[in-house]
Amino acid sequence: MAGQSRKLNVAMIGAGFMGRAHSNAFQQAGHFFDIPYELKLKVVCARKREAAEQFAAQWGWEGSQTDWRSVVAREDIDLVDICTPNHTHAAIAIAAAEAGKMVLCEKPLAMNYAEAQRMARAARNVPTVVWFNYRRVPAIALAKQLVDRGKIGQPYHYRATYLQSWGGDPKVADAWRFRQSEAGSGAMGDLLSHSLDLALLLNGPITELTSTLKTFIPKRAVDDAVLLLARFANDSVGTFEATRFATGCLNRNCFEIHGSNGAIRFNLEDLNRLEVFDGGDAMEIQGSHNVLVTGAEHPYARHFWPPGHILGYEHTFITTLADFLACLAEDREFHPNFDDAAEVQKLLDAVETSAKNRTWIDVSK
Amino acid sequence: MAGQSRKLNVAMIGAGFMGRAHSNAFQQAGHFFDIPYELKLKVVCARKREAAEQFAAQWGWEGSQTDWRSVVAREDIDLVDICTPNHTHAAIAIAAAEAGKMVLCEKPLAMNYAEAQRMARAARNVPTVVWFNYRRVPAIALAKQLVDRGKIGQPYHYRATYLQSWGGDPKVADAWRFRQSEAGSGAMGDLLSHSLDLALLLNGPITELTSTLKTFIPKRAVDDAVLLLARFANDSVGTFEATRFATGCLNRNCFEIHGSNGAIRFNLEDLNRLEVFDGGDAMEIQGSHNVLVTGAEHPYARHFWPPGHILGYEHTFITTLADFLACLAEDREFHPNFDDAAEVQKLLDAVETSAKNRTWIDVSK
Amino acid sequence: MAGQSRKLNVAMIGAGFMGRAHSNAFQQAGHFFDIPYELKLKVVCARKREAAEQFAAQWGWEGSQTDWRSVVAREDIDLVDICTPNHTHAAIAIAAAEAGKMVLCEKPLAMNYAEAQRMARAARNVPTVVWFNYRRVPAIALAKQLVDRGKIGQPYHYRATYLQSWGGDPKVADAWRFRQSEAGSGAMGDLLSHSLDLALLLNGPITELTSTLKTFIPKRAVDDAVLLLARFANDSVGTFEATRFATGCLNRNCFEIHGSNGAIRFNLEDLNRLEVFDGGDAMEIQGSHNVLVTGAEHPYARHFWPPGHILGYEHTFITTLADFLACLAEDREFHPNFDDAAEVQKLLDAVETSAKNRTWIDVSK
Amino acid sequence: MAGQSRKLNVAMIGAGFMGRAHSNAFQQAGHFFDIPYELKLKVVCARKREAAEQFAAQWGWEGSQTDWRSVVAREDIDLVDICTPNHTHAAIAIAAAEAGKMVLCEKPLAMNYAEAQRMARAARNVPTVVWFNYRRVPAIALAKQLVDRGKIGQPYHYRATYLQSWGGDPKVADAWRFRQSEAGSGAMGDLLSHSLDLALLLNGPITELTSTLKTFIPKRAVDDAVLLLARFANDSVGTFEATRFATGCLNRNCFEIHGSNGAIRFNLEDLNRLEVFDGGDAMEIQGSHNVLVTGAEHPYARHFWPPGHILGYEHTFITTLADFLACLAEDREFHPNFDDAAEVQKLLDAVETSAKNRTWIDVSK
Repeated sequence: MAGQSRKLNVAMIGAGFMGRAHSNAFQQAGHFFDIPYELKLKVVCARKREAAEQFAAQWGWEGSQTDWRSVVAREDIDLVDICTPNHTHAAIAIAAAEAGKMVLCEKPLAMNYAEAQRMARAARNVPTVVWFNYRRVPAIALAKQLVDRGKIGQPYHYRATYLQSWGGDPKVADAWRFRQSEAGSGAMGDLLSHSLDLALLLNGPITELTSTLKTFIPKRAVDDAVLLLARFANDSVGTFEATRFATGCLNRNCFEIHGSNGAIRFNLEDLNRLEVFDGGDAMEIQGSHNVLVTGAEHPYARHFWPPGHILGYEHTFITTLADFLACLAEDREFHPNFDDAAEVQKLLDAVETSAKNRTWIDVSK
Repeated sequence: MAGQSRKLNVAMIGAGFMGRAHSNAFQQAGHFFDIPYELKLKVVCARKREAAEQFAAQWGWEGSQTDWRSVVAREDIDLVDICTPNHTHAAIAIAAAEAGKMVLCEKPLAMNYAEAQRMARAARNVPTVVWFNYRRVPAIALAKQLVDRGKIGQPYHYRATYLQSWGGDPKVADAWRFRQSEAGSGAMGDLLSHSLDLALLLNGPITELTSTLKTFIPKRAVDDAVLLLARFANDSVGTFEATRFATGCLNRNCFEIHGSNGAIRFNLEDLNRLEVFDGGDAMEIQGSHNVLVTGAEHPYARHFWPPGHILGYEHTFITTLADFLACLAEDREFHPNFDDAAEVQKLLDAVETSAKNRTWIDVSK
Repeated sequence: MAGQSRKLNVAMIGAGFMGRAHSNAFQQAGHFFDIPYELKLKVVCARKREAAEQFAAQWGWEGSQTDWRSVVAREDIDLVDICTPNHTHAAIAIAAAEAGKMVLCEKPLAMNYAEAQRMARAARNVPTVVWFNYRRVPAIALAKQLVDRGKIGQPYHYRATYLQSWGGDPKVADAWRFRQSEAGSGAMGDLLSHSLDLALLLNGPITELTSTLKTFIPKRAVDDAVLLLARFANDSVGTFEATRFATGCLNRNCFEIHGSNGAIRFNLEDLNRLEVFDGGDAMEIQGSHNVLVTGAEHPYARHFWPPGHILGYEHTFITTLADFLACLAEDREFHPNFDDAAEVQKLLDAVETSAKNRTWIDVSK
Repeated sequence: MAGQSRKLNVAMIGAGFMGRAHSNAFQQAGHFFDIPYELKLKVVCARKREAAEQFAAQWGWEGSQTDWRSVVAREDIDLVDICTPNHTHAAIAIAAAEAGKMVLCEKPLAMNYAEAQRMARAARNVPTVVWFNYRRVPAIALAKQLVDRGKIGQPYHYRATYLQSWGGDPKVADAWRFRQSEAGSGAMGDLLSHSLDLALLLNGPITELTSTLKTFIPKRAVDDAVLLLARFANDSVGTFEATRFATGCLNRNCFEIHGSNGAIRFNLEDLNRLEVFDGGDAMEIQGSHNVLVTGAEHPYARHFWPPGHILGYEHTFITTLADFLACLAEDREFHPNFDDAAEVQKLLDAVETSAKNRTWIDVSK
């Protein structure tokens, strides 16, 4: 943190699971990275006063408030971080952007593409971040490097599954994530959005898709599962599946790419590993390399611990924040930002339309 | 083989990869099972005389011929086994059935559903077998038992991938399997047919599907890959993918089922194993059981070696044949037979139509 | 942190790899656990002023010093945490204990058993901790619960390997960990000490052992590898191996226990998983359960993230500290303390003697 | 089998588990390999007439006898294959060798080193084979090639575990394998002998060792488990463990080698796979290659099925026999023969002595 000269005053709206993950990132980024700003955790905002106060005490926020509008109106705030339920993202983000704040927002960015576009337009003059945090899992960042260096070659197949199993748990049946009015969708916005963001990062634009949705719980208004076939601009084909009814799978966010020179495979439940097949290996020892992505030569790893000492889920938020701050200091554009997330939202809209109309949808324009 | 009283005279048409696998089954069934027939390997038929003779010598066939019609016409033959390229199945099978022979035939049974129906009709008075041999992998037979006993519960998801990588190999580019006129299709008939047969076995009828085909090699007339979304009569949803362009995958025939009580996962490259998730396990030790399916309590295993001694690919043909012979002796109907394979062919036709018309196809009637 | 009433002023001696891991624990414990103290990070001590100052700034210590004696002499310090090279542990720990401070110390506690005993005696009136942090990996804590509940039954075999590969790396050849005068030993004190601590926790006392040491680098004074056979008081037998020359292994700290009812297997490179074999499972689905130890029912996990969101290396220090603080507040004895670590040191001395004399050593008294 | 000119008349003594495995090899070798002999399965010998007759019928032996001496005395027999309990090997092998027969014998060759030496001397003018069949698992043959080509470099560590779990099963408690008078030893001769043979093949001579034995079942005269530390002539160090009390492990015969350039790992329960770590890989994709040893470039595989089609336990006997017959035809010495197996027996004697005397034993002379 030597040479740090600039303070950044942070406000966070929302104090649930994601509020904890983001608070941790704000606290930890400076421990592991030489970040170019001094982060001041000014205020956390949650609807219930007591909860907000307790959260602030636990996570080191200077104060707490219960009305996001007054937070966004504060002149001393530089950056507003949004981790509230999906239906509130737009109002908060637009207000924050119009007040000239930088805006960081949880995914899915919006309830639909039109809303996402409005948000992106409103924020076009401020730095933005959407917390598609998995882009910065070290193993996924390595995957991106390998793809970009041509180690996979011409892509043939992309295959993504995001498998969870809590959809049928009666204890959580009334969570906001199952309510249409607050979440917008089910597995689609929550899980498939991650898979699509990674696909766009690693395999480029999708040109057309067809999909189907499934809800297993009677009267539930959102999808429990979404299935997808897709064609990519790079001439590869893909399948996507996201579900909250994959019994036995807790957070199995997987993807595979097969190309002319090699292949990669990832599973978030083993997030420190990347399987890499290298078609250039001598024939007799060809087989997927089981790479423990913790080495000095791997993305992010040297900032944390020596080789072989694994990272966890929460580190993906730290690396995202550290990269954003570096971009900010160097006046480089950060990705994924609101425009990137709007592209995902466009695909989600197409998925919904396709499922309803039972047709392929052209998403190439 | 004690008590064996009946001889069965066998003719085999075709002497390629499958000819070796079938010959091995005819030779080995009696070593591991108390089969109720004495198999007489009378004649193998291949187009080139020298190759036929050498094959007969190597695999213990009494003689060889080069014209399948004269083989089928032989009065001393009880059973005709067909392992020629796909486009010849119908003529041979129908002639054999009309001559009163039992008919065993490689998959895919036919070039299309209409042809499969004609074959099934022609053979309705003789015992038939289609070599969907993977049904009798011990681990898959165990999966079937678990499903039937309700260990998986209400099924939610079925997911099948059949991944091979030889499609781009220039050394095999002119194999009959890539010629439309002889194979009928590419990955569809060769690989997807296996996946569909297993899905019907394990998860019941499919009611509708949508698909897309992909050919990566210019001017190739058959599909290199096929992707599929499906809905099943039991209210579960499924994805299927079969490809010859999955770099790094040699014969990765996988399926997963997630249900309300448990889940199973299988990969043919580890064919002695079945992953079983049991929702009834104590919470703190819930996790997929890595079952080495070689125990006395497992299907077929006791016929071979003690627990822990693994089986290979070829054993699936031996178990198929042994089961067929037991059914024959006990006058029970064997599955999968021509009717079962015609159901697969009906789905393959629908896959092709769906891919061409870019629509969902109702396959429930 | 509601109800927190007591402050605890902390000093840390040492600012290397372990200094970072401990600082992180001091910073993070209160975020994830309701710890009964307010930790004040008063001072970090390192020999070089500039490094000490930078470390203090990066990790949030109020100040820095360069002479541990003056730190230990400070009246405002309640707790001294030692993460310096091994040969300095005794002097610091004894001085701190004699000054009435609580003492936390990195492993191995001492250079030999006699020194460890002196330290334990000096500290007998103050709370002590030795950072055998792996005891509090959630999966290992689960292993301990399963053993204690009899899920493994009568133990037959204990098998531990701690495999690293940096021993031959010329870039680190002059690290203090390879110097006899500072480290005391090589793989023995660094790696085997962890394995022995876990063995004592999970499988109870060792009664006799025989060992051999190996140094692959000419002129290196410490062991690169240590191999061990052992007999336990519970009538099981064991093997231990620790090495810095296991090419391809970064931090593969593994153990297995086989007992009359079940078995468990752990690998630190997959620290969120525990393999559990349950002999009580129905025969046809017996196989190791692949347990992702992140559920509400698992040790520690509920303090962090929802099921399926994995933890990393650093969390083991957080859980250790949180448990220690809870013990402190409730006046319960914490383990592993100096007495526990002295038992490990006794075994390490016996290993060294056995290797030198090439005999079995009785360690039962 | 074209060009086959020579007949080889075979007699087999013993008709248990190994009798089946050997019969299968005699039947199958000619199907998969162009063996230079026509094998005539003349006679199988077992003590009970009815069992012998049934076995002969099931496995295609021309006839059966009950007295091995009269079999060995037959002039028409060229080759005697021994798969009886251990205590009978010597008498049969010596008689057969003195009658000028080639002798194939199950492992362990003898009850002790002196007996093995007598057998080797008696057989010095006839071709011999000891069925250490695992040498010819394709993955192990590949491991041998990699070691010989220097892909592992200077070896540091050798680690072998042979884990089974049937030792406590009351149903088999009176099997001959648990009787000192017939088996000579328990896990030592049965399991450790395999591990030692592979170690000698892959890592060269052992110079000294220390060991301990353990019997878990009261009054059982043979060892249930054996543990070993060893030093090799190539300056590497090793551990060995063989047990029949490793709950959850069926036939887990594993070894690992770590060398200066790479590492390999094998597990017989996944016998078609070899894990290969190649220190020459680019740093960012270093990790164990998961090699499915079924390719045209792999040992033996091309004789069986296309890549990705896995082999089973029984194939190791087929490859052993095929190699022996090729050596025989080309007048090359086959390994492992009686001399090789006597070296293993020498080590087993040393293991026993070491365990009794609780000392290291020099086995370098």
